[in-house]
Amino acid sequence: MKLFFGEIYDDHAILNEEESHHFAKVLRGQEGDVVHVTDGKGKLAKVEINSISKKVVEGSIIELKTDFEKKNYYLHVAIAPTKTMERLEFFLEKATEIGIDEITFLQTFHSERKNIKIERIEKIIQAATKQSLKAYLPKVNDLTKFNDFIKQDFENFTKCIAHCEDDIVKTPLKSILENEPNKILILIGPEGDFSRDEILNAEKENYKGISLGQQRFRTETAALQAVFAIDWELKS
Amino acid sequence: MKLFFGEIYDDHAILNEEESHHFAKVLRGQEGDVVHVTDGKGKLAKVEINSISKKVVEGSIIELKTDFEKKNYYLHVAIAPTKTMERLEFFLEKATEIGIDEITFLQTFHSERKNIKIERIEKIIQAATKQSLKAYLPKVNDLTKFNDFIKQDFENFTKCIAHCEDDIVKTPLKSILENEPNKILILIGPEGDFSRDEILNAEKENYKGISLGQQRFRTETAALQAVFAIDWELKS
Repeated sequence: MKLFFGEIYDDHAILNEEESHHFAKVLRGQEGDVVHVTDGKGKLAKVEINSISKKVVEGSIIELKTDFEKKNYYLHVAIAPTKTMERLEFFLEKATEIGIDEITFLQTFHSERKNIKIERIEKIIQAATKQSLKAYLPKVNDLTKFNDFIKQDFENFTKCIAHCEDDIVKTPLKSILENEPNKILILIGPEGDFSRDEILNAEKENYKGISLGQQRFRTETAALQAVFAIDWELKS
Repeated sequence: MKLFFGEIYDDHAILNEEESHHFAKVLRGQEGDVVHVTDGKGKLAKVEINSISKKVVEGSIIELKTDFEKKNYYLHVAIAPTKTMERLEFFLEKATEIGIDEITFLQTFHSERKNIKIERIEKIIQAATKQSLKAYLPKVNDLTKFNDFIKQDFENFTKCIAHCEDDIVKTPLKSILENEPNKILILIGPEGDFSRDEILNAEKENYKGISLGQQRFRTETAALQAVFAIDWELKS
């Protein structure tokens, strides 16, 4: 059954404008059709469509689930965008499918990419959320300068920076996960890694340097590894 | 430093014909250049190029490593190709980067894709091997009918079939990995999963039904999850 984004009220739901258009014009949906609607914040409703107008598709809620498949942890990944957007996009799609709550794009010293199309990225994440029938839509934050980002307050988060600098002590991600953190923030660097200064600055802000394993991975592979490992170790 | 495929002898190495062309014509390499050469079977040599002819680039070995970064397990993934080749190709690239030894493509009851371009796939795997500086080139086997494949003899392999059939008992992959198998074969099904008959036939051939977690993943995500999890749990 198809999933649409919309507003969920007590006994009825309204598809967002774009989703209403998609339902009515692209999919040629009919009154009486039964679909899934999510607010992207944990509610998943089974809805029978009652009325279809040009801009609003509305229906009655048959069944409502709240906190649908809520994870037992919150994962925020802040990542330097890869040179090739395709690689970043694949990561975003997979991360959404596996489970991620918030994504920030980092502008770092070694970043080659200085801009991203945030609307395109939001579309990819929405599509992945719908495709994998999830009721939580990951939050997306625009490109932020590294040094500004690390100064932000992330209360109660276990804050980690993944890097490959050999002479700065790192903790294996495995050890971090043994403490079963329930709010995790992981920074993933660009091709060419974070600069030494960036790593040291992050440490001053209580980020722990971590290693993801013995291998040096590409940016998007390292990020995927982290998302998979956290799901693997923490999901109850 | 760039990596090339070639033949490695006692004190010298010869780049493959295609690689020789790439070195000489595309990269415009020169005598005196120092490059890495691998035989794809564990040998990695640092080589100083001595002679460049139209079809053969040859050099002296400065340093030779054998069993370079050899993993402590052998992983064979047999996978039903995804409808969209792009998704399969991304999996192959990532799996090569993380660590996989052998790949077979399965023709299953629910497979929508009935053919694959094995040469293109080999190119992708070669490129990923070079890019991630690995000395083992994963072996690629062409499309094989499911029922023929499971009858093949895989001596000493822990054989698993990942599926989502609710009323057939499955073991979590995590439990399988606790026994630290050193030869693992995992079957990954198509969109629409393996058929019930396929699962039962595999069980008759001593395959264990496994689950990769609570989530239902896309084909390529399930396969990636397995490759990541095995690396995560087994790599010493």
